[in-house]
Amino acid sequence: MNPGRCAACRYLRRRCPPDCIFSPYFPPNNPQRFVSIHRIYGASNVAKLLQQIPSHLRTQAADSLYLEAQYRIEDPVYGCVGLISLLQQQIHDVERQLAMTQAEIAFRARHPQAVESNLLNNVGNPSFSNQASSWFM
Amino acid sequence: MNPGRCAACRYLRRRCPPDCIFSPYFPPNNPQRFVSIHRIYGASNVAKLLQQIPSHLRTQAADSLYLEAQYRIEDPVYGCVGLISLLQQQIHDVERQLAMTQAEIAFRARHPQAVESNLLNNVGNPSFSNQASSWFM
Repeated sequence: MNPGRCAACRYLRRRCPPDCIFSPYFPPNNPQRFVSIHRIYGASNVAKLLQQIPSHLRTQAADSLYLEAQYRIEDPVYGCVGLISLLQQQIHDVERQLAMTQAEIAFRARHPQAVESNLLNNVGNPSFSNQASSWFM
Repeated sequence: MNPGRCAACRYLRRRCPPDCIFSPYFPPNNPQRFVSIHRIYGASNVAKLLQQIPSHLRTQAADSLYLEAQYRIEDPVYGCVGLISLLQQQIHDVERQLAMTQAEIAFRARHPQAVESNLLNNVGNPSFSNQASSWFM
């Protein structure tokens, strides 16, 4: 066994040539990295993908392929599209909260007397924020 | 040619069996859908992925595989991991904006006289928001 073979060539039980397309991105000390992407994409598809990318960007490509493969192994139905949906929902929630907070500022600017007595006690109180926002929006 | 063959069997130039794993998710009227996922994952890997998923979830799996394949074709280096990074940055930006707006409310609650004269003219003015937030944070 050649100890210098990369993780891909070890897994595929073949000689690791000096110009191996996998070698720089799949070191022998991290065999799982290749196992994951081989399981989802297959070795020949990964080789084709890497070959079509300029060499200075292949590390990033191998990293992103590995990440996507990991998501797909953890969630075979949605893969990283599940994470994208979660993040989009999170953006929607924070944007909604921001709009409500901005509406609250606008409301207080227009009704300083109405809110002054409650202001110090209610800063950060969600029910007060919701009430003020609902008046304004 | 059998006009009833699915897009996958047409592309692979083979008979489309009644229990074809691709047929329900790759209709003949959308050949590009199969071409994209075949290019990134390969037909046999997609078949394996679909077979390990309960049949009532395979439509979602085929959809998410197609989406990921499209992202990878459009951005061979980062694929949909590029979109995930963008969304995470967007969440960070909106959360920062929300924290600044909440700080502005707290500041105004504690200094009603100091801001009252500027309030009506400056609602929604980013430079005023930034100034008020920087005093407080």
